[in-house]
Amino acid sequence: MTIRALVWNENRHEQTNALVRQLYPKGIHGEVAAALEEAGGISVGTATLDEPEHGLTAEKLANTDVLLWWGHTAHGEVKDEIVQRVQERVWEGMGLIVLHSGHFSKIFKRLMGTPCALSWREAGEVERLWVLNRNHPIAEGLPEYFEIEHEEMYGEPFTVPEPMETLFISWFEGGEVFRSGLTYQRGAGKIFYFRPGHEAYPTYHNATVRKVLGNAVKWAYNPATAWKRVNEAPNTPHDKAPVPLEVKGPRLHQDGEEGFR
Amino acid sequence: MTIRALVWNENRHEQTNALVRQLYPKGIHGEVAAALEEAGGISVGTATLDEPEHGLTAEKLANTDVLLWWGHTAHGEVKDEIVQRVQERVWEGMGLIVLHSGHFSKIFKRLMGTPCALSWREAGEVERLWVLNRNHPIAEGLPEYFEIEHEEMYGEPFTVPEPMETLFISWFEGGEVFRSGLTYQRGAGKIFYFRPGHEAYPTYHNATVRKVLGNAVKWAYNPATAWKRVNEAPNTPHDKAPVPLEVKGPRLHQDGEEGFR
Amino acid sequence: MTIRALVWNENRHEQTNALVRQLYPKGIHGEVAAALEEAGGISVGTATLDEPEHGLTAEKLANTDVLLWWGHTAHGEVKDEIVQRVQERVWEGMGLIVLHSGHFSKIFKRLMGTPCALSWREAGEVERLWVLNRNHPIAEGLPEYFEIEHEEMYGEPFTVPEPMETLFISWFEGGEVFRSGLTYQRGAGKIFYFRPGHEAYPTYHNATVRKVLGNAVKWAYNPATAWKRVNEAPNTPHDKAPVPLEVKGPRLHQDGEEGFR
Amino acid sequence: MTIRALVWNENRHEQTNALVRQLYPKGIHGEVAAALEEAGGISVGTATLDEPEHGLTAEKLANTDVLLWWGHTAHGEVKDEIVQRVQERVWEGMGLIVLHSGHFSKIFKRLMGTPCALSWREAGEVERLWVLNRNHPIAEGLPEYFEIEHEEMYGEPFTVPEPMETLFISWFEGGEVFRSGLTYQRGAGKIFYFRPGHEAYPTYHNATVRKVLGNAVKWAYNPATAWKRVNEAPNTPHDKAPVPLEVKGPRLHQDGEEGFR
Repeated sequence: MTIRALVWNENRHEQTNALVRQLYPKGIHGEVAAALEEAGGISVGTATLDEPEHGLTAEKLANTDVLLWWGHTAHGEVKDEIVQRVQERVWEGMGLIVLHSGHFSKIFKRLMGTPCALSWREAGEVERLWVLNRNHPIAEGLPEYFEIEHEEMYGEPFTVPEPMETLFISWFEGGEVFRSGLTYQRGAGKIFYFRPGHEAYPTYHNATVRKVLGNAVKWAYNPATAWKRVNEAPNTPHDKAPVPLEVKGPRLHQDGEEGFR
Repeated sequence: MTIRALVWNENRHEQTNALVRQLYPKGIHGEVAAALEEAGGISVGTATLDEPEHGLTAEKLANTDVLLWWGHTAHGEVKDEIVQRVQERVWEGMGLIVLHSGHFSKIFKRLMGTPCALSWREAGEVERLWVLNRNHPIAEGLPEYFEIEHEEMYGEPFTVPEPMETLFISWFEGGEVFRSGLTYQRGAGKIFYFRPGHEAYPTYHNATVRKVLGNAVKWAYNPATAWKRVNEAPNTPHDKAPVPLEVKGPRLHQDGEEGFR
Repeated sequence: MTIRALVWNENRHEQTNALVRQLYPKGIHGEVAAALEEAGGISVGTATLDEPEHGLTAEKLANTDVLLWWGHTAHGEVKDEIVQRVQERVWEGMGLIVLHSGHFSKIFKRLMGTPCALSWREAGEVERLWVLNRNHPIAEGLPEYFEIEHEEMYGEPFTVPEPMETLFISWFEGGEVFRSGLTYQRGAGKIFYFRPGHEAYPTYHNATVRKVLGNAVKWAYNPATAWKRVNEAPNTPHDKAPVPLEVKGPRLHQDGEEGFR
Repeated sequence: MTIRALVWNENRHEQTNALVRQLYPKGIHGEVAAALEEAGGISVGTATLDEPEHGLTAEKLANTDVLLWWGHTAHGEVKDEIVQRVQERVWEGMGLIVLHSGHFSKIFKRLMGTPCALSWREAGEVERLWVLNRNHPIAEGLPEYFEIEHEEMYGEPFTVPEPMETLFISWFEGGEVFRSGLTYQRGAGKIFYFRPGHEAYPTYHNATVRKVLGNAVKWAYNPATAWKRVNEAPNTPHDKAPVPLEVKGPRLHQDGEEGFR
């Protein structure tokens, strides 16, 4: 069985900045996709902001097992109805890997329900990521810690909900710390936030970072059939209850109504 | 120190349905407010959907420690900008108690990031709530379990994130179960979802339910000064870092910029 | 790759009680093992209390991926050093499935750190298990809920830590509820508690229960190499630190010492 | 209402090491007690390893609301029956604050069920603790981060269960990170692990550390009556069930039996 991954990127820095274009001639999406292809067992597609429906049609999402998300300057341009569509697909069981500045994407903020804010600095400093559970599938093949020579700093407090698991914590040369690998379950969907990936540095060429990306896709993959009714509020009439009942007292609703929204 | 609670109610059934009006002549908000006043140490106000800004002006929210929310048929009429305002106030530290059909309110769905769906039935059946941690502040003074003679059934799966604590689980006569008391932390705000409260039954006249409401307000109250910058992404320049740095490598940002949204 | 499961059973009721012997002529361990063999991809062994070292030698545990545990009247006879051995193997990454009355086993209480108490009743009543996340690997192939015609009742409060995930909640005919499927992570080991399985009823012949057992083994399996040093406290000397340091201030320890226990 | 705190210390370094004696002439317990007295609203006692029953008689524990624990070289000398007694008192609702090298104490390991291991180094390096939720009661009055000029390093992985809340994460000069403030709920008891406190440095004279100690005691205090039966497994006979039942099928137990352990 092959996992169907889709790498989404706003793909703007690549158009406007020579440095980013030089680092990522295939685009950040292209480089992340290449990393996933190396992992084996994953078929990879890409989608970008300027495609129709941002490249995220209902059909394409229905055929995606795990979505990866990189965005930064154009979070605000992502249409709300597309965000809603992605969110519902996560609830149904699609995995989601949110990368770096995607912490402020609409989709991540909606799924977390919190500010997802942090402090930051662009100074090319060293980031060292410590692995908290080296036997977790996302840490497969990793050393006790790994370093990225130049990275943007993200510092705590990172205002997200307590995660299911804290997998990585970063140490920064300038004195900050950050929870850089966090897992969540929302509906049937598994979510992984992975911090590194500043567009001005060659982070997605780093072999360990690439390894994490492949591992994360495999972890987030849920082979179960999509949970189509995850967002419905079905009425179970009194005579269809597991223990059938006679109605007692007054009623405002009729059997079979939908829940109000 | 007195806790400043605000009870919000859409206040529609009370206008359109004689039964509800008879059960709650002061409105559901009025009856919940009365319960809080009995608890002591709480000053209580109310607000309803049809007031300007739904009664939730920035000033009123700034002077609210804990907000209680009852809504049902009119979730869709609550303005998005007001929901955003309430959400930000929760992040700053305001407590939030979401009641019954409020599971489908915009504010609860936004804070949870999940469908918040469930199954349901209106048959006047018995609900028995089991207390999982009888020493939790919200369970203060409760017996091992308590019953509500007639209630609407809500059944699992309740598609919410794993809570900080599961406090109550309900048994229903018709055969379903439900996690009826759940705590969450989102930003600086404490959130409690409490299931009972169907408008067609006298649930908010039940002494144990009233006890829970008062306990919950006391639990959700955070005496700390509002966390005003919880939603900001401050830049910490290289020379202001805890360990001052020289900039290495290329840069796309300037010192002191705001994070992109 | 085949998962190596080991089913441990105290195997006492089978010797002393004709009813249990008739229900489980192969022993409860034998019937649970048969269920796992039906699941496919699992090689199954068994071990019982009265074997040398309770059938849990260091070598056998080293060659076990997932251990299942059924005990009841003889929890107190399980030797502490064997419990310690099992616990350390869980920390290294062995999965553990704790069944029914195993809630009071030494190994479960040690891993949880809590009383693991509950209320109970043996009246042959109906148990109905509701599935909270039907797309979870442990729920693969299950309906929305499933029933067991005759079961012992276990009632809340079940004094365990908040789980990683609450997967099943049971409704009992006599009015109680219980969190019947709970997942935990402890060290590198994944743990699943599964409630049904009273020795006086044919629960382990129930097709859905058997399905859960197989699913749980597959979920709890961690293919990573055992985390052998999970219980060690290594010293990292100042000159071997990721950022090498000069020692400042006084010292009580020497480089390379072991942490005190 | 005054909170009754008890500071337990093995009190060995103070007897054998001139440096520690000079830093803590009242003993570490005495200095921690002094910090709590500054906080106000707390009455403080102390207890040490060499007292009869380690100063932890059943009566003293029954009159303790929050226990603080500092141990290091003598973890192994603490008697198992006293550890059991403390653990049961935590389950009943006594708060517990575990300090620094107490991560390897019997009581903490028992309550966590995990190795509680970590890496370490004694080099007098700087520790900087970042506050993740500045509105949490334990963070009351703290800045965004605080520094300790000389501390022993503790590094991840810290093999504990995922906490209820991660409050502090430490940055160390030598390149490691550590979750330095973690909250847990076990039975009715609230637990806080707080990392700083190496005996060779004046950490407990640090004003911010002292502030945390007082805050933590106030947070861990549970005013509810002790949950005396938290460790019992009561039988609820069929005719005393919330929904009285006739017994169906066979029975191995009698009404009113105790659960097997």
